[in-house]
Amino acid sequence: MYKVNDNYLKLPGSYLFSTIAGKVTAFQAQNPDKNIIRLGIGDVTKPLTAPIIKSLHEGVDEMADAATFKGYAPDLGYSFLREIIAKEDYASRGAHIEADEIFVSDGAKSDSGNIQELFAVDNKIAVSDPVYPVYVDSNVMAGRTGTYDASTGCWSDVVYMPCTEENGFVADLPKERADIIYLCFPNNPTGAAITKDQLQRWVDYANEHGSVIIYDAAYEAYISEPDLPHTIYECEGARTCAIEIRSFSKNAGFTGVRLGFTVIPKDLRCGDASLHDMWARRHGTKYNGAPYIIQKAGAACYTPEGKKSLKELVGSYMKNADAILKGLQSMGYTAYGGVNAPYIWLKTPDGMTSWDFFDFLLEKANVVGTPGSGFGPHGEGYFRLTAFGTYENTLAALDRIKEL
Amino acid sequence: MYKVNDNYLKLPGSYLFSTIAGKVTAFQAQNPDKNIIRLGIGDVTKPLTAPIIKSLHEGVDEMADAATFKGYAPDLGYSFLREIIAKEDYASRGAHIEADEIFVSDGAKSDSGNIQELFAVDNKIAVSDPVYPVYVDSNVMAGRTGTYDASTGCWSDVVYMPCTEENGFVADLPKERADIIYLCFPNNPTGAAITKDQLQRWVDYANEHGSVIIYDAAYEAYISEPDLPHTIYECEGARTCAIEIRSFSKNAGFTGVRLGFTVIPKDLRCGDASLHDMWARRHGTKYNGAPYIIQKAGAACYTPEGKKSLKELVGSYMKNADAILKGLQSMGYTAYGGVNAPYIWLKTPDGMTSWDFFDFLLEKANVVGTPGSGFGPHGEGYFRLTAFGTYENTLAALDRIKEL
Repeated sequence: MYKVNDNYLKLPGSYLFSTIAGKVTAFQAQNPDKNIIRLGIGDVTKPLTAPIIKSLHEGVDEMADAATFKGYAPDLGYSFLREIIAKEDYASRGAHIEADEIFVSDGAKSDSGNIQELFAVDNKIAVSDPVYPVYVDSNVMAGRTGTYDASTGCWSDVVYMPCTEENGFVADLPKERADIIYLCFPNNPTGAAITKDQLQRWVDYANEHGSVIIYDAAYEAYISEPDLPHTIYECEGARTCAIEIRSFSKNAGFTGVRLGFTVIPKDLRCGDASLHDMWARRHGTKYNGAPYIIQKAGAACYTPEGKKSLKELVGSYMKNADAILKGLQSMGYTAYGGVNAPYIWLKTPDGMTSWDFFDFLLEKANVVGTPGSGFGPHGEGYFRLTAFGTYENTLAALDRIKEL
Repeated sequence: MYKVNDNYLKLPGSYLFSTIAGKVTAFQAQNPDKNIIRLGIGDVTKPLTAPIIKSLHEGVDEMADAATFKGYAPDLGYSFLREIIAKEDYASRGAHIEADEIFVSDGAKSDSGNIQELFAVDNKIAVSDPVYPVYVDSNVMAGRTGTYDASTGCWSDVVYMPCTEENGFVADLPKERADIIYLCFPNNPTGAAITKDQLQRWVDYANEHGSVIIYDAAYEAYISEPDLPHTIYECEGARTCAIEIRSFSKNAGFTGVRLGFTVIPKDLRCGDASLHDMWARRHGTKYNGAPYIIQKAGAACYTPEGKKSLKELVGSYMKNADAILKGLQSMGYTAYGGVNAPYIWLKTPDGMTSWDFFDFLLEKANVVGTPGSGFGPHGEGYFRLTAFGTYENTLAALDRIKEL
């Protein structure tokens, strides 16, 4: 008799956002007259911008003509996209990344989940706490996390690095062995940013201790303060210790379009093994490239018109973020984030648990947010609101919260 | 120091089609004046059909308007697509598959490579030989295949099931333990089809022995003979032992568009574990859905105009297949397939090895095919040509082969 991968069965509950979706659906079914405002999942609401739409239509037209039709994409992405990314996202910031160190994919979630495959099962992972659930869950599925303690919400073989008010939601360097370190800045869920000096300390730590950093920079476009690093490769030595994951979901509104990329420098080696070559092999064997029309739309994000339109798009969401942050603070809430990230991280009032506050907000204000504890034990007592609603809904949600 | 997944390092050489692409590029660089005809990789050449193009443009327009914009797709696929698949691909053939047993993805290659994650490392896999390389390679990466013997081209822990002229390229039931059995019909690379009685024997075997069948039906649309099964769920008992993988690449020309699906019936259980729920969890954690505009185009494949246009598309490729099969046979080659599949499987002449014939054909006729040995040891002495070229190129390639 065949046997299943028991590691899957260790996962407690369902994926966080599936649980939330279930609760919201049930509430709506019982209260069909209520107008729910969703500031929970980090999904965008504004349409694709005009230069992207134009590019998509052109791509579709190319697929209609035998002379311009495109079959299988190159395994690792079209050169036209990899080259523009190398130039615009890396060279422009003084970071040395070659086009062939950029692996185009269908999004940062796939890459975040799949990247752990490159590593042996007995590596120890370290994650910020709270953290985007995919990092831990994908390692659970691979059998890398030991046993789950329901009372603490922690896995025995995971190093949790608390992100608290005290450290400004930027974790301290781990004191225990940490082979694979997941970092995400600007941070989901806390909205915290990291300075270049702070990030350099992580890079130095990784090079000294033989760790690899998986740096999730999906929210890079939301950085508004000067002097913050937009990529880990702005730090010296990052080419020998860091993988960076990027997304088009939030800067260009591609959550339903699906495009992202992962950078693995050729200098990232473990003995004789090249992580770059291993990831190329994974793409070649288990992936068949992102659709041509969507890679073309990705390249359109870097044209002058494309960049201008995305700046406006991000700016409009950041107007929401500003309204939420200042609105909550004016109501007496303690709230963070919202300056370099589309997320606001607020302390639940009156010592409520995160899930109690979720239910309270859903039932009394018909507003959906995300319970901080869903992101890990140190998220307890916090709550995440996103800036991805419409401006009108964002203000309406704030009015409802004010009346609670 | 972190450690890499050593299993990746056991893989010999590069992915087959990457190797071929490298050889062709090198030859073209040295012979810039030669007009190479590619009948190697199974990539389509004809543009998307008019109903698909129309649907893609409509989908793009929806993404341009806030009222119709779509963000994250449902994890497992849009209901409109899952429902039409259940009706058109399953109910219409008397197979009982519910819409929520269909998991939409970015293609059969991803699903073929990822599906093994659901199973424990110590399962034994069985594959036809020759076989599509992804089945074995993805299991190598997971550490399920033992050690590689370069002299035989075989892995110590894989059950190879020879497909030969004697058994009509339909493998015999295995005599050894086989927990996970990969079957592909119509077959890539041999072009062989399986009868319903033959397939029923596999289903019965799997249910009796506690095996699970991973049934790759990517070429279903090419079945031209009556009474052949189009899905494994036409067989009694398949719901308790079989997973089916489907693709839009070859029936609709989506190789560069990326859409496929996997069927996991809820009756497929291993003790308490539901494979259906495990795959749903994988999608929820490591995948973020296929793009809306592409799922919409997928649904357009099932409209009356869509079906008509795809029938013509497949018919035109099958005209090529017929020309290749009959052309080669008239030249004295022994050739198979080409009737229910877009692949022609020919015996290399004069006892040449598959790679020798590859080089010979590339250098003398400037025609690219795929060496049979690239698909496994029992592919040695064979060669695969595909029907996916243009009709003009297909005839030109045959003329050149005739002159050898």
